[in-house]
Amino acid sequence: MKFVDKLLNISRRNKSLLCVGLDPDPELIPGVDILQFNKAIIDATRDLVCAYKPNLAFYEALGIEGLTILHRTIEQIPGDIPIIGDAKRGDIGNTAKAYAKALFSVFGFDAATVNPYLGLDSIEPFISYQDKGIFILCRTSNPGASDFQNLCTDGLPLYEVVAQKAKEWNVYGNIGLVVGATYPEELKKVRSICPEMCLLIPGIGAQGGDLASEVNYGVDARGKRAIIAVSRQILYASKGKDFARAARDMAEKIRNQINSYLASRPEAK
Amino acid sequence: MKFVDKLLNISRRNKSLLCVGLDPDPELIPGVDILQFNKAIIDATRDLVCAYKPNLAFYEALGIEGLTILHRTIEQIPGDIPIIGDAKRGDIGNTAKAYAKALFSVFGFDAATVNPYLGLDSIEPFISYQDKGIFILCRTSNPGASDFQNLCTDGLPLYEVVAQKAKEWNVYGNIGLVVGATYPEELKKVRSICPEMCLLIPGIGAQGGDLASEVNYGVDARGKRAIIAVSRQILYASKGKDFARAARDMAEKIRNQINSYLASRPEAK
Repeated sequence: MKFVDKLLNISRRNKSLLCVGLDPDPELIPGVDILQFNKAIIDATRDLVCAYKPNLAFYEALGIEGLTILHRTIEQIPGDIPIIGDAKRGDIGNTAKAYAKALFSVFGFDAATVNPYLGLDSIEPFISYQDKGIFILCRTSNPGASDFQNLCTDGLPLYEVVAQKAKEWNVYGNIGLVVGATYPEELKKVRSICPEMCLLIPGIGAQGGDLASEVNYGVDARGKRAIIAVSRQILYASKGKDFARAARDMAEKIRNQINSYLASRPEAK
Repeated sequence: MKFVDKLLNISRRNKSLLCVGLDPDPELIPGVDILQFNKAIIDATRDLVCAYKPNLAFYEALGIEGLTILHRTIEQIPGDIPIIGDAKRGDIGNTAKAYAKALFSVFGFDAATVNPYLGLDSIEPFISYQDKGIFILCRTSNPGASDFQNLCTDGLPLYEVVAQKAKEWNVYGNIGLVVGATYPEELKKVRSICPEMCLLIPGIGAQGGDLASEVNYGVDARGKRAIIAVSRQILYASKGKDFARAARDMAEKIRNQINSYLASRPEAK
């Protein structure tokens, strides 16, 4: 099944555009091991999400053991929920092929994030997995994003050029974009350039993005194809033994908020 | 010891600007396992190089076992030869911190490559390891590099803006740049912007870059601080049982060619 169909199916069933980022930080996890923590978070939120998104950095920081935990975490996720490997890889063609294999065949992710700086041949090996989703970094949610992404190139900021190129490269319909919620006007602009693409939107919660504009500007004309990624705000909603319950409550609250913003869009009325 | 001092020391002792890329491809390795292959390549070239550079993609593509091989490969490298983790990571600050930990503390690399697309806060956690080397992708060696890196931003191509920013961010003197050998004029330009930085220069051999211009344009005024990275041309110089001998011969040939180009530079006379 194609990534986008898997996404739309579970999104419909769980009535959710919420993606939980599985980014375990040993300093913040309350009194259980990381695999137990991830398992508890998944069990507590599996009926509330449209996807999970582990960021590989947090597992790599734990060495080989961390990668074993990542494999086991992936096994815990129900088969009908897509898993996005947030890896932001980017390398020359020959090497990108190895990264695509690592993410799609070894880990078995349904989708992955990639960095556009090296151009098309660094992304092609990913795109050639036609059933997988490939999210190209476009406008990221961090403070330093504007250092290069907003530079004006022939009248357009770089991130808009990336969005246009992504659209041009999207021959299999499996490309999406990462656009941070912290810059709503730019999210709006990217959505206008790529009206039918899936957008992966991090940045609410700990990073301060605004959920209402994220929903309004991020979704497509039918109120779909936006994946609103939240990590710390859900994972660490409580630092006590009730972390899983607190994570569920927070995930449910955010999912419902998203749905209420969706229902009040002018197009939905 | 600072990365640059370690590099200059071994470069002087081995009379070498050559870095061997340890990028094992199971389809090309002749009849031994990957760890044995890497060990044989290291043993055959350790007196001819200024650094080794494993690209993480090739190990990640082999799963957990591949990462174990990478750890063991690192153990095989003599302590006085710097090891550059070619990972091209780039993520928001919080996550970049985890990647820096993975590369510098878990794997123990002396240096790492990073992607600039996310801006300063994605690179700062690396820079804060003051004794490590941080090579920011500037102008890469692949065909797609020009998709974005050559876009004109306020009169300058993006890669030049990256070089200027890198120079500005180089408060600890531990930043270098990755500049492909396949575009000699651009290498020359970057060297003129950053006359004192270490440049990591891939792209000769399999990628078709020209060694003479790479040497002439890549080194600093004293003929140093260029790291000329070669992988496939050395690793797979022979597909037979004599692969290690053939790798040594090729490495020696390239090292000596580099030195003869160095000796014939106008500044060297």
